[in-house]
Amino acid sequence: MAVYTEVTDEALRAFLADYALGELLAFRGIAEGVENSNYAVKTSHGDFILTLYEKRVDAAELPWFLGLMRHLASRGVSCPLPVAARDGVALRDLAGRPAAICTFLPGTWPRRVRQQHCAPLGAALALLHAAGDGFRAERPNGLGPRAWAPLLDRCREAGDTVQAGLIAELDGHLAGIQRDWPHDLPRGHIHADLFPDNVFFLEEERGTPRVSGLIDFYFACTDFLAYDLAICLNAWCFEPDLSFNVTKARALLGAYRALRPLGAAELEALPVLCRGAAIRFLLTRLYDWTHTPPGALVTRKDPLEYLRRLRFHAEARDAAAYGL
Amino acid sequence: MAVYTEVTDEALRAFLADYALGELLAFRGIAEGVENSNYAVKTSHGDFILTLYEKRVDAAELPWFLGLMRHLASRGVSCPLPVAARDGVALRDLAGRPAAICTFLPGTWPRRVRQQHCAPLGAALALLHAAGDGFRAERPNGLGPRAWAPLLDRCREAGDTVQAGLIAELDGHLAGIQRDWPHDLPRGHIHADLFPDNVFFLEEERGTPRVSGLIDFYFACTDFLAYDLAICLNAWCFEPDLSFNVTKARALLGAYRALRPLGAAELEALPVLCRGAAIRFLLTRLYDWTHTPPGALVTRKDPLEYLRRLRFHAEARDAAAYGL
Repeated sequence: MAVYTEVTDEALRAFLADYALGELLAFRGIAEGVENSNYAVKTSHGDFILTLYEKRVDAAELPWFLGLMRHLASRGVSCPLPVAARDGVALRDLAGRPAAICTFLPGTWPRRVRQQHCAPLGAALALLHAAGDGFRAERPNGLGPRAWAPLLDRCREAGDTVQAGLIAELDGHLAGIQRDWPHDLPRGHIHADLFPDNVFFLEEERGTPRVSGLIDFYFACTDFLAYDLAICLNAWCFEPDLSFNVTKARALLGAYRALRPLGAAELEALPVLCRGAAIRFLLTRLYDWTHTPPGALVTRKDPLEYLRRLRFHAEARDAAAYGL
Repeated sequence: MAVYTEVTDEALRAFLADYALGELLAFRGIAEGVENSNYAVKTSHGDFILTLYEKRVDAAELPWFLGLMRHLASRGVSCPLPVAARDGVALRDLAGRPAAICTFLPGTWPRRVRQQHCAPLGAALALLHAAGDGFRAERPNGLGPRAWAPLLDRCREAGDTVQAGLIAELDGHLAGIQRDWPHDLPRGHIHADLFPDNVFFLEEERGTPRVSGLIDFYFACTDFLAYDLAICLNAWCFEPDLSFNVTKARALLGAYRALRPLGAAELEALPVLCRGAAIRFLLTRLYDWTHTPPGALVTRKDPLEYLRRLRFHAEARDAAAYGL
């Protein structure tokens, strides 16, 4: 699914000639990631990931993403480190696309999230937030609260074909979210898409997972730090039947707070941040669902899974709903 | 495209516990291959490929394929070697599918075939044919000449929607192929699907490619050895505009013959073998084209590319058309 741009051998060899990465040993498309084309590249110097940035990523923003990753890696975050070519430049062109080589990260992402994943995740998120400090440039969240009403409008016509009454329900939720949205929480650089397939783990000897890599920073932006937690609560703490696993939430939040304490305003805002995170993924999925032509080679994700999450958060009175 | 079956971490770890492959370091879906699910697995012992066999592969035939690969690898062919678990068994179950781990082969497959690829390909094919000798069990070619008329019948209804008059033209070609098909050529185990994406190359220092791996033996069968050459002539020697590159053909055939001389009957049969190979891929593509529901996550390949090839071979009077 994740190879949209084919790279010829000649183009790859010419591209790699600009790097000091040794001899090319293997080159395989990777079936993960949904926005860009990713290839595993093995050279005599080791394993790397080559990413070709596809249309949905704005090329003008790539220097910010790569700069953030470089900053985070230099602060000890296990994220892909962009590899510069001999001329010092990491962002290049290949097969008509912006392209970059990053270091390969070990680990496997959890196809089934266990409670044991959630504490290491929370700690990794807190460390990510701390490490982002000092990276000066900001990137506004293009899929933040101001984007939701226009996105809902673009789904208005087709949305009720997915479920009767859906648009009216979302109008109600969105009005409430916008009314309750906080104005003044601690801000910083957030990942904003930290789903299980973007977090690699290795198992320690006793079967305890530890985070070995955070990947796919192409939604990263500058926003409320606690909103990243809300995204993780949505992405990691619901079971496949969409029941909420408060043990996972408590582990996630507890490990996060041990490294970066949450203020009273952040705790109070947690339910609305979770509602916001749920409607953000609901709306992009709903848009894709209703605008993807049949036959397109893209896996559409069910938007209604996020309606179930949204309804759960709408019932949450305070942070106690998340185990605090 | 090539991850149809998701494997949970727990299932993977339980599966790997049966092997002596050390500690799991990474696990990534591979975007190549169209019939099965393939994962790159990195352990402390090295790189491996995990394949889950999907429905289009008959599980009862897997021991034959794995046995052939083991035989070929033991004879020095650079093909995946099935790795046995501690109990000596290579073919196992994972996530409800038959599954096997094989050795990882270095190299890259040529996205654009150059003339320089064709001689090493021809030599590798001749070595493959020689190495197959001594593997006793036979597997009939399920997509050989006897399969073509029934396959054409199953395309009869929808075929002309692809191109007006297509079915009548194919009826004519098929009658001629069946009339001219040879009865008594040297037989052996053939790969039967040796397209560029199944052949890995590494570049020597002077830019000369050498074959580093032959993969995907799941169409392998016992048939005329020269039919494998005919498949390669179809798959490697036409340019993107479907003109025939006789220089590539001469390099392929020349390098093959240097290791395994072709008899007079094989040379004489070359045009009809090429027509047969062309109609075989045309018919399976036409069947898939007319039977794949819109929206299915499968890349359909254009059957008409093979009609152009078929017409070329139908004009060939003798092996001279292939540069001999």
